[in-house]
Amino acid sequence: MYQLYGTSGSGNCYKVSLLLTQLYLPFHWHEVDILKGESRSDLFLKKSRAGKVPILETPEGEVLSESNAILFYLAKGSDFLPLEPLQEARVLQWLFWEQYSHEPNIAVARFHKVWGDGDLTPFADKVANGYDALALMNAHLADNLFFVGNRYTIADIGLYAYTHVAHEGGFDMKPYKNVASWLERVSRQPGHIKMAAAK
Amino acid sequence: MYQLYGTSGSGNCYKVSLLLTQLYLPFHWHEVDILKGESRSDLFLKKSRAGKVPILETPEGEVLSESNAILFYLAKGSDFLPLEPLQEARVLQWLFWEQYSHEPNIAVARFHKVWGDGDLTPFADKVANGYDALALMNAHLADNLFFVGNRYTIADIGLYAYTHVAHEGGFDMKPYKNVASWLERVSRQPGHIKMAAAK
Repeated sequence: MYQLYGTSGSGNCYKVSLLLTQLYLPFHWHEVDILKGESRSDLFLKKSRAGKVPILETPEGEVLSESNAILFYLAKGSDFLPLEPLQEARVLQWLFWEQYSHEPNIAVARFHKVWGDGDLTPFADKVANGYDALALMNAHLADNLFFVGNRYTIADIGLYAYTHVAHEGGFDMKPYKNVASWLERVSRQPGHIKMAAAK
Repeated sequence: MYQLYGTSGSGNCYKVSLLLTQLYLPFHWHEVDILKGESRSDLFLKKSRAGKVPILETPEGEVLSESNAILFYLAKGSDFLPLEPLQEARVLQWLFWEQYSHEPNIAVARFHKVWGDGDLTPFADKVANGYDALALMNAHLADNLFFVGNRYTIADIGLYAYTHVAHEGGFDMKPYKNVASWLERVSRQPGHIKMAAAK
């Protein structure tokens, strides 16, 4: 069975549990309390030197880190990842964009809003860049049902994880109508599960 | 022929030109002056909404962005990317790590050092995180010749791009002996080219 080490409330961890569920792959969730430093324990660092959740342990005992690399590994050969090389590369393009231009802004703003003192003044850059990311997604979705090839792929799973909770980071989602319709489409996919609330 | 839109001195652009060269794929380099806003021109944004270099245009006219997604696309089916799924995922793991934990620290510090006023005081976090990234690489290379499977892959190309110029960002590389040997090994790979100096 797959072992998933993650933190409830983390979009990066949620996206892996969502894909595992939609692939009907049974897994055991190990809760890691990052605020208590559990991802920096000797035991955790022995599994993954980077000390970040999520990590996936395969039934064979191999450990993978980086949420979007895990998504790619699990999705390979399934309907969630196109076989055609250019389409596959476009999925990766969106996943790299998510980790560089979306998550460090939207997820980090949400983290400080929800788990910090709630004051985003020192994070004005992240808020502005987060809105840029939402605007770019909204423009792309003006003539696309999903991010790649008009079908639901891990590009959508990767982007859904923190977009659907962006409002918790103080982002006003009202102007992004295409994003709202896409969030709704993603949430209606077979086997969809909600993100577990933070513990 | 491939068309590569990039900025001389940018590691993200260099990594794509390095792989194209090592794959013996002819390409035309289009210089984009990001400091003059050329990646935000209407023409550029029409090709890629994200407005970032590099972008690759295939001989068929398809456009890809995100340097590491481009590396993956070009390397597919070659010796630079393992076929075995777990190894392939480990390559992606390092490439995602590079874009999240390495580039935003090391490349951004270098950018402010070389193209800014040279004062890294406001970027102390990025400097500290950059050293963490170097330490992690050094530990991994203590018992690995290359990042994945003890062979030269796009994981090495991705990480080489900004590591080999980290000293330009003020990073003291002396303590990272394994990184130094690996940089040397990478630079001795067949078809290696140097990064073009910034214009």
